[in-house]
Amino acid sequence: MTRDETSPQHPYELFYWPSIQGRGEFIRLAFEAAGAPYVDVARLPEAKGGGARAIMALLPGGAAWTGAFAPPILRVGDLVLSQTVNILSFLAPRLGLVPRDEASRARALQISLTLADLVTEAHDTHHPIATGLYYEDQRPEAHRRAAHFVGTRLRKFLLYFERLLETNTESGGEHLVGLELSYVDLSLFQTLTGLAYAFPKAMAAFEAQIPLSIALRDRVAALPRVAAYIASERRPPFNESGIFRRYPELDLDPATALEAAGEKSK
Amino acid sequence: MTRDETSPQHPYELFYWPSIQGRGEFIRLAFEAAGAPYVDVARLPEAKGGGARAIMALLPGGAAWTGAFAPPILRVGDLVLSQTVNILSFLAPRLGLVPRDEASRARALQISLTLADLVTEAHDTHHPIATGLYYEDQRPEAHRRAAHFVGTRLRKFLLYFERLLETNTESGGEHLVGLELSYVDLSLFQTLTGLAYAFPKAMAAFEAQIPLSIALRDRVAALPRVAAYIASERRPPFNESGIFRRYPELDLDPATALEAAGEKSK
Repeated sequence: MTRDETSPQHPYELFYWPSIQGRGEFIRLAFEAAGAPYVDVARLPEAKGGGARAIMALLPGGAAWTGAFAPPILRVGDLVLSQTVNILSFLAPRLGLVPRDEASRARALQISLTLADLVTEAHDTHHPIATGLYYEDQRPEAHRRAAHFVGTRLRKFLLYFERLLETNTESGGEHLVGLELSYVDLSLFQTLTGLAYAFPKAMAAFEAQIPLSIALRDRVAALPRVAAYIASERRPPFNESGIFRRYPELDLDPATALEAAGEKSK
Repeated sequence: MTRDETSPQHPYELFYWPSIQGRGEFIRLAFEAAGAPYVDVARLPEAKGGGARAIMALLPGGAAWTGAFAPPILRVGDLVLSQTVNILSFLAPRLGLVPRDEASRARALQISLTLADLVTEAHDTHHPIATGLYYEDQRPEAHRRAAHFVGTRLRKFLLYFERLLETNTESGGEHLVGLELSYVDLSLFQTLTGLAYAFPKAMAAFEAQIPLSIALRDRVAALPRVAAYIASERRPPFNESGIFRRYPELDLDPATALEAAGEKSK
């Protein structure tokens, strides 16, 4: 796939919480992997227009609001876009991160949305009742939800993405869409990396069942631009404020998670 | 916005559970509002290739699987697409249900994704722990989640969509995107209608705060094709197997929901 080498007339400006990877990380990775210049606005000092204040101005009630519900938000000149998958789908052809034909772009969006569903379910293991509460206010419910996530949902999702790789034989099982690296490959890398942070025991149990996915994850991590990014201070560390959180009590053994929690499946 | 009047070479085939509205209903509504011919395959008798069996064949492990994770699934000739918002985004320009320019299409996708987030949160009020369990297996957790949904999240979403209408002044506050009916307007209609089924008390409390949204909902319901569809047997009724379920114990008064449930917000 070819990349549009003309520089955008306006720089890409990303607005996302500066101290977490979260959903913004899927977009940072696309810029970084493509070697595209972008400004991670909220990571700038407040004196230079950065900080969380820059994000708040674009949210409902903010002085510069134009339609976003939540970050991440992308600004390119007058155009302001939000919703992670929407931003990725908009950027991908500009960054050479998706095949050009409509069918491939729709397939990439489809897989990207399914990854987003998995990410939401991973998030909800620590926030099953309300995002407006702390984890500590919903621990028993989190334990139940995590048992079902690790015991049934996670396997279903992981085997699904593995099967997509297996059946993309023209790419030798190396890419989710088409024959080259796409934003969906980057998003699978990020999702698998986050899951391994949050659920190291569970993910270790699954690794042998998803060899193509693990190989893709490791190939992406080794791409020179991605490796340089991961080693840099531009990538916020995983922590217990983001989507993927390491709470050892939620990292259950997939084989016994439901039973150990006294749960059944209908 | 103009519609591509050439008939597709292949008929549109929708695969979705035949007895519920669910996420498939957002796609049925787009076809119906546009007057576009489509086959709701699983509603055909099994002898004619219908029934749930037709869907299962396209799901992981099925004989005709080509990449779907879950229904709804759209087939157009050799092209098979899944994920509700992806299908809508693909169909909309073909059905004359989105402006042609890229910025408007991205904005429509953005709003559509935010509606999908609201729909997922509405679903999770009755399934906060696991989709693999019955509601009856997670009633206390459902009550907690519903208190936060009705008490904080629902208001935030509803006021957000209202504000989008208010600020689309060129449309007189009548459309979410552009100057004419789009698939996003149809999706807002469906979401508000489903919410009013599931949470009649809560939605009645909000109606006065979202006059443009209610007016849009009622205008869509009165469109001749949509009115005919709603009156027909093609539209499955709301019921307690779909996304929007009427469980009176979850239909809390927004003003007191958190307090009554003994909940706080951080």
